[in-house]
Amino acid sequence: MSDEHLKEHLYERKELFKGSFLHALRDTVRLPDGQLATREYVVHPGAVVVVPLLKGEDDQIRVVLERQYRYPVGQVMVELPAGKLEAGEDPLLCGQRELLEETGYTANEWAKAGEMHLAIAYSTEVIHVYFARGLTLGQQQLDAGEFLDVFTATPQELVQWCRNGTVTDAKTLSCMVWLQQWLERPESMDWQASKG
Amino acid sequence: MSDEHLKEHLYERKELFKGSFLHALRDTVRLPDGQLATREYVVHPGAVVVVPLLKGEDDQIRVVLERQYRYPVGQVMVELPAGKLEAGEDPLLCGQRELLEETGYTANEWAKAGEMHLAIAYSTEVIHVYFARGLTLGQQQLDAGEFLDVFTATPQELVQWCRNGTVTDAKTLSCMVWLQQWLERPESMDWQASKG
Repeated sequence: MSDEHLKEHLYERKELFKGSFLHALRDTVRLPDGQLATREYVVHPGAVVVVPLLKGEDDQIRVVLERQYRYPVGQVMVELPAGKLEAGEDPLLCGQRELLEETGYTANEWAKAGEMHLAIAYSTEVIHVYFARGLTLGQQQLDAGEFLDVFTATPQELVQWCRNGTVTDAKTLSCMVWLQQWLERPESMDWQASKG
Repeated sequence: MSDEHLKEHLYERKELFKGSFLHALRDTVRLPDGQLATREYVVHPGAVVVVPLLKGEDDQIRVVLERQYRYPVGQVMVELPAGKLEAGEDPLLCGQRELLEETGYTANEWAKAGEMHLAIAYSTEVIHVYFARGLTLGQQQLDAGEFLDVFTATPQELVQWCRNGTVTDAKTLSCMVWLQQWLERPESMDWQASKG
């Protein structure tokens, strides 16, 4: 099935602005019916979110979570560890770096679960989703100006918090797709030993 | 538990730009340790996403979905019907309007399932999540320059597409939290008759 009746094609590009964090473009595009329209959007380097599975002394699995103040929404949010890709960075290495920096954990096995496009109306951002297990606690290495609490919850608690409004962060909500798949079929994850 | 060790407070605000669609601010904020930092983000009016449940002649429930080209990610995306709030618009009325405009369906019962914050690092956007049932097909009323296909899938197919990478739109992935809850416990939805 062809998608030509849906596609839009670049006609002209203008930089809207380049801030220290946000970079935005305004493209004029040709619509499927030949008309022109404008599309304004944020150019994003991509990101990684990690679902870290911590096995307790009671053999119960718990997910490592963060509480972090998110200024644009003016709230402390419960969310999975995540961070932006640095230029040219491999997503898996980014996930390992962010997990260590934000929570202090390293993991000896990693599995790629999927990808999501975060805000398709106005951002290029793609988030790579990894699961991590075999966790060892080391030293958290927060960036200057980064403040967050680390805590854990059972997968069942986390799913419940997503359902009842305790968690409203879309990247964390989206990860429930793969957390519930893992709860149903633990063998569905393709675990790879961590290198190095 | 106090969140003062996490909170950031506005110190100074500057408009980054106001486009025809995007509106962005750069705020200088005071961090919990007293230092200053900048936060650049998009101001968004909020949005609604609808999970429309269509009962077929075979009594099988199917979810109404769309295929739409999303320019920032350069792909045709499979997604739930959704749209932005107009100034002062009630989210439920927005959901009813968008469902009719994009798919041609009206629904005689609606249930609020939850809310999500879409891109908490750089947008104020909140998306209200509604389920709709008792659907009647009328006339699609696409905006000028809007092009999309409407189709249906069973809830089980949709969950599978989310797991296997066919669906990567975060708002649609996030809605699986409540779709799976509804599959497990149909009585969990608080249905209200549509007014008017």
